[in-house]
Amino acid sequence: MAIQLNCDLGESFGAWKMGMDAAVMPFIDQANIACGFHAGDPLVMRKTLQLAKEHGVTVGAHPAYPDLVGFGRRSMACQPAEIIAMVQYQVAAIDGMAKSLGMELAYVKPHGAMYNDMMAKTEVRLAIMEAIATYHRPLALMLQATPESAAHRQEAADKGIGVMFEAFADRCYDDDGKLLSRTKPGAVHTREKMLAQVAQICREGTVTTVSGHTLSLDVDTLCVHGDNDEGIAAIAEIRQVVKS
Amino acid sequence: MAIQLNCDLGESFGAWKMGMDAAVMPFIDQANIACGFHAGDPLVMRKTLQLAKEHGVTVGAHPAYPDLVGFGRRSMACQPAEIIAMVQYQVAAIDGMAKSLGMELAYVKPHGAMYNDMMAKTEVRLAIMEAIATYHRPLALMLQATPESAAHRQEAADKGIGVMFEAFADRCYDDDGKLLSRTKPGAVHTREKMLAQVAQICREGTVTTVSGHTLSLDVDTLCVHGDNDEGIAAIAEIRQVVKS
Amino acid sequence: MAIQLNCDLGESFGAWKMGMDAAVMPFIDQANIACGFHAGDPLVMRKTLQLAKEHGVTVGAHPAYPDLVGFGRRSMACQPAEIIAMVQYQVAAIDGMAKSLGMELAYVKPHGAMYNDMMAKTEVRLAIMEAIATYHRPLALMLQATPESAAHRQEAADKGIGVMFEAFADRCYDDDGKLLSRTKPGAVHTREKMLAQVAQICREGTVTTVSGHTLSLDVDTLCVHGDNDEGIAAIAEIRQVVKS
Amino acid sequence: MAIQLNCDLGESFGAWKMGMDAAVMPFIDQANIACGFHAGDPLVMRKTLQLAKEHGVTVGAHPAYPDLVGFGRRSMACQPAEIIAMVQYQVAAIDGMAKSLGMELAYVKPHGAMYNDMMAKTEVRLAIMEAIATYHRPLALMLQATPESAAHRQEAADKGIGVMFEAFADRCYDDDGKLLSRTKPGAVHTREKMLAQVAQICREGTVTTVSGHTLSLDVDTLCVHGDNDEGIAAIAEIRQVVKS
Repeated sequence: MAIQLNCDLGESFGAWKMGMDAAVMPFIDQANIACGFHAGDPLVMRKTLQLAKEHGVTVGAHPAYPDLVGFGRRSMACQPAEIIAMVQYQVAAIDGMAKSLGMELAYVKPHGAMYNDMMAKTEVRLAIMEAIATYHRPLALMLQATPESAAHRQEAADKGIGVMFEAFADRCYDDDGKLLSRTKPGAVHTREKMLAQVAQICREGTVTTVSGHTLSLDVDTLCVHGDNDEGIAAIAEIRQVVKS
Repeated sequence: MAIQLNCDLGESFGAWKMGMDAAVMPFIDQANIACGFHAGDPLVMRKTLQLAKEHGVTVGAHPAYPDLVGFGRRSMACQPAEIIAMVQYQVAAIDGMAKSLGMELAYVKPHGAMYNDMMAKTEVRLAIMEAIATYHRPLALMLQATPESAAHRQEAADKGIGVMFEAFADRCYDDDGKLLSRTKPGAVHTREKMLAQVAQICREGTVTTVSGHTLSLDVDTLCVHGDNDEGIAAIAEIRQVVKS
Repeated sequence: MAIQLNCDLGESFGAWKMGMDAAVMPFIDQANIACGFHAGDPLVMRKTLQLAKEHGVTVGAHPAYPDLVGFGRRSMACQPAEIIAMVQYQVAAIDGMAKSLGMELAYVKPHGAMYNDMMAKTEVRLAIMEAIATYHRPLALMLQATPESAAHRQEAADKGIGVMFEAFADRCYDDDGKLLSRTKPGAVHTREKMLAQVAQICREGTVTTVSGHTLSLDVDTLCVHGDNDEGIAAIAEIRQVVKS
Repeated sequence: MAIQLNCDLGESFGAWKMGMDAAVMPFIDQANIACGFHAGDPLVMRKTLQLAKEHGVTVGAHPAYPDLVGFGRRSMACQPAEIIAMVQYQVAAIDGMAKSLGMELAYVKPHGAMYNDMMAKTEVRLAIMEAIATYHRPLALMLQATPESAAHRQEAADKGIGVMFEAFADRCYDDDGKLLSRTKPGAVHTREKMLAQVAQICREGTVTTVSGHTLSLDVDTLCVHGDNDEGIAAIAEIRQVVKS
């Protein structure tokens, strides 16, 4: 299966607009839709689902810690039982709304700090997997593609759930397969390097790390960003590379 | 079908406890479970669902306006599209969590100010009905039994949804079939009068109004309250009357 | 004293940006700063206060109903005691933050639905006045200039507080001195009519209503909007008219 | 100055009641009042302030991370600038409300996870101190009495603010002067041991640690809890020991 493009969407909230959802939607395969805890009120969720439907885009839940003012970007020390319940609540909300529009939610991609905690802390990752495993129908979990992907796939298989791994088009990787910190020079690729990295991921299943090593990554989908005109243009170009 | 007993449950929130859910559950048929907008966080929702399951109690969604500090008791001037989305979000959240515990959500009973607005304003009532009608599977709407019940049943039928009507065990009715305002003397029945009213509803399908008239009410379920020991005792007695 | 220009500012929230505060600030006299209940988190409040200080702009509290997702635009049926407490909380928060930056909060202008309710409902207006009257230091209340302004001034005087009245530069007035509903043709003035209305308010203290009558209004300040480039340009032109 | 008793109060929220504030107030010297971010809505804050005034109890702000559902007990990875702004907002809100009732807020004691982070992370502690140092009038900061108290006093002095140190009446200390984890046996003292610890703190300025060592603590105030009848009774007994 070809590598997909996924994007975080539905991040407006009430009177506040964020993102260029209508401009991004034609270029992507998978929309990660905010579920109300860090962004995305019920009306925004409906509109984003409808937009995805018009463009035949697959939809996933994008649950987060309950932190509107922090946009879900601040790690919160939640108990596993709290994480299980909050993920299942958010997944159920968007799943039921999707079904009511004749759509099928396909996966779950945690947002922001919950995503980072999932990758860094086994306890958080297992709680998220448990939330999905005990959900009433199968949903895949989207995680970051890293050298630990095989282990994560096994953890998920033990719970009986499927996984998808995502890579980042525009971010430089360090030798451990982590994203190079944004505070470091070269952390965010130029347009040219970004397209080269996309091509390498698609054709060889590898990235070239900051120190020049070649690192294998098991990549199902690429995360792209559509916050501004430049981002939209980049997505269109990435789309071309992935297709060709 | 025998008249059911329904009760608002799952109204704790985080560290704050409310209600005596475990004590009430054995005596009721239907649990109206808060969905997070006025009470009931995801963890409380799970626990309340599990408790209902243990007791074989039917579960319904108890959606509300987004007003935690006001406990959903303050009318908010929401647009129909906002009401449709917020009801569907809350219903979907509790429905998906229920299904994940092997349970089937059966109905929707709006809470507090949303319930009052539903009874008083056609626009709000139709928006709530629309939320249920466009939900992906059939759910009944619980409304107050009044002289307008036939008209409300027709409105719901026009949308393709079912209804249930509830009466209040302990509240005196005025001649219009509305609850006598709590500011008026005799608004809340003594224990004796409450049980007499329950018996009259069950056997004759009528209530005796404040001025002594007999009023027919189409009643499927009785709303009971389990906030304290006295309430629990009253429910147990009502249960006896309804059974006999 | 010359007619002032006031504008709602500090309406960003967390990751969501709203308004062009930096572009507006040079042209206005009074900044109505959101206090966290409908917009404006603590960090946004600090930055907005600092920006006002740099430009020598007078600051006022812009309290609202607790309704982030509705941006404070939905009327909520709050009790007077609730309104008194929520207004005083918001005023105290911005006042203490202003003082900590060496600034003095000067007035209170309710936002959105609370403002509309203040103008339409005596109970709400008196609750807001009571909140200010019982605040620990004097603050003026900003209300809409209408034919009732003298009565409102008297209500405020009875509580021991001062008032300011504001008119709208770009809105057509009906014969009762209310803003013509936005659903009616001509509700929002063209640029030319707006500037004419500003000039008439400044020089004659009157507006010409939708039906051509001349209506006296007691105006201390004009409400302007800076959401986009066109709005900023309009403010600059209004500034010229007011100055001249 | 005699050792004071302080207690967290005003932790109700909307319809949810918590704590026995009226029963506790007669026995304590200092009320740490929740400011709306983890508990305590504006109406609860006013009532708690009034209750403190009636009993001549000194009031302090009890600010927290913005986490109602987690009751402020979950650490959140906030930036220093966010902490400074959120602390100052909450302090200002309660300070202005207190002043409006003729009271003077005296100190700031962070709540829950913010308190723990203050004790564990220099960055958080300095941010909280900065919030107080840049507040428009002097307020003391209440921290836990530990072997680091002298260093904390110096940090505060460098910012120009005063400190108070609190000890816990009913908790066993480990040899590092930290509270023994609640998961360990003997973490919470029996009534008898609690009163002995209080007496030792008052008369000798020391506690006996879990391993039997004597540890000096610089204690200004004792934290007590009034959640239930037993807690109230304990406070009354502690009061007797402190007085004698």
